[in-house]
Amino acid sequence: MDLPVLTPGQFELVYNGFSLAVAAMGAGFLYFVLSRGQVAPAYRTALTVSALVVAIAFYHYLRIFEGWAASYVLEGGMYVPSGVPFNDAYRYVDWLLTVPLLLTEAVLVLRLKQGAGGMIARLSAAAVLMIVTGYPGEVSSDTATRLLWGTISTIPFIYILYVLWVELGRSLAAQPEKVRVLVRNLRLLLLATWGVYPIAYLAPVLGFDGAGAVVAIQTGYTIADILAKPFFGALIVWIAIEKSRADGWSPSDAKAVAAAKA
Amino acid sequence: MDLPVLTPGQFELVYNGFSLAVAAMGAGFLYFVLSRGQVAPAYRTALTVSALVVAIAFYHYLRIFEGWAASYVLEGGMYVPSGVPFNDAYRYVDWLLTVPLLLTEAVLVLRLKQGAGGMIARLSAAAVLMIVTGYPGEVSSDTATRLLWGTISTIPFIYILYVLWVELGRSLAAQPEKVRVLVRNLRLLLLATWGVYPIAYLAPVLGFDGAGAVVAIQTGYTIADILAKPFFGALIVWIAIEKSRADGWSPSDAKAVAAAKA
Repeated sequence: MDLPVLTPGQFELVYNGFSLAVAAMGAGFLYFVLSRGQVAPAYRTALTVSALVVAIAFYHYLRIFEGWAASYVLEGGMYVPSGVPFNDAYRYVDWLLTVPLLLTEAVLVLRLKQGAGGMIARLSAAAVLMIVTGYPGEVSSDTATRLLWGTISTIPFIYILYVLWVELGRSLAAQPEKVRVLVRNLRLLLLATWGVYPIAYLAPVLGFDGAGAVVAIQTGYTIADILAKPFFGALIVWIAIEKSRADGWSPSDAKAVAAAKA
Repeated sequence: MDLPVLTPGQFELVYNGFSLAVAAMGAGFLYFVLSRGQVAPAYRTALTVSALVVAIAFYHYLRIFEGWAASYVLEGGMYVPSGVPFNDAYRYVDWLLTVPLLLTEAVLVLRLKQGAGGMIARLSAAAVLMIVTGYPGEVSSDTATRLLWGTISTIPFIYILYVLWVELGRSLAAQPEKVRVLVRNLRLLLLATWGVYPIAYLAPVLGFDGAGAVVAIQTGYTIADILAKPFFGALIVWIAIEKSRADGWSPSDAKAVAAAKA
């Protein structure tokens, strides 16, 4: 999309949103790495994958932040395009890597007895399809083109949401009480977060004009990414902690000490 | 606020304060991560959260430091605004993330038997309200606007302080003797530190003129942040160490296991 002239308030909202995302992704990374000792070894891979997701997003948000600052200059009290194009592809490259990983962490924490590998492969293929078909619409200035590619991209999008919703729902019965509440929240967070992406994508189609559309798209994606990555990952940590406890595992060696002494 | 012309002494006081904050946040992060093995597993999440707080603040103080340097140029022996706006939002985005986490670490270290989750949620909601309503006053050049938003923001501020003061006080009776002294200090540090924020915020209302107000606000916030984050976190570490000892846990439990097995 061509960049419109922005008021300082509009420019700074997007700019500070990007900076917030950098901080949130970095903090998420530290949290997931530092929490590994709090969960049983069986759940540590899920935390590792969560850490990879936010590490990749941390890198991309640094680039997006710098790219945004370079795309504008302050002139006569307004932010006008500097001529340096803003690179939308950072987001799509980020999603290409992180969405399959996000789906993997969700499947891993459920510890399905069988079929986990196949499900990760099917969901990842759908994710790649969704992202690759969404991109041509994102970079087009034409509303009809955006709508066309957006619609195509929605098919794998709905497939992923449907499979995860059903699978997470199916696993509910087998979970201990405390875990059930958290998995239910994970399912709702997934639906709420993923719902923001198509709304942000369709901002120009929904009648937002130039400046409003750019602000809506960029802040919408930023909010959705913060919910879908560090927040989603934190829920995965809490589920892993509760499941570790339900499995009879404890981070304390106090029990081992007592057993050894007895 | 519009930036005033500053003397070299005024500019450098703020500049060196920001640099001190970067060093203090970074050192705090290392201390909290390296101290994890010194406390029982039950208290490690409180230390992890303390580490996240200072990591987030480390990032923001780097940005604030660079932003301050870019906002001024030395001309004829005085520091005059360069035209690059100084971004006050970094502080507010920082607080948006770190204040709920600070409240979480205080509640976590108390190890309340029940109601901890609900209390963290209520305090965090009040913190977001406090920060979001404070911001419009911070960026306004008008004293009346600053006073209005400052007053609104004070309501959740007092609610948070009151709840924490009462809860920390209520937990005193249940604590072992050595911990009681530390929790009492934590309570006093909380009150003293949090008291600095509104004073700094109100500097322009309290009669400080342009240059004096900017220096008072920036150094006030910096001092308050250093006390509220690394110092507050260090007290949390000492409380966790004493409580671990009182629980009968020792960092050499691993040794005990080995000895018992032999």
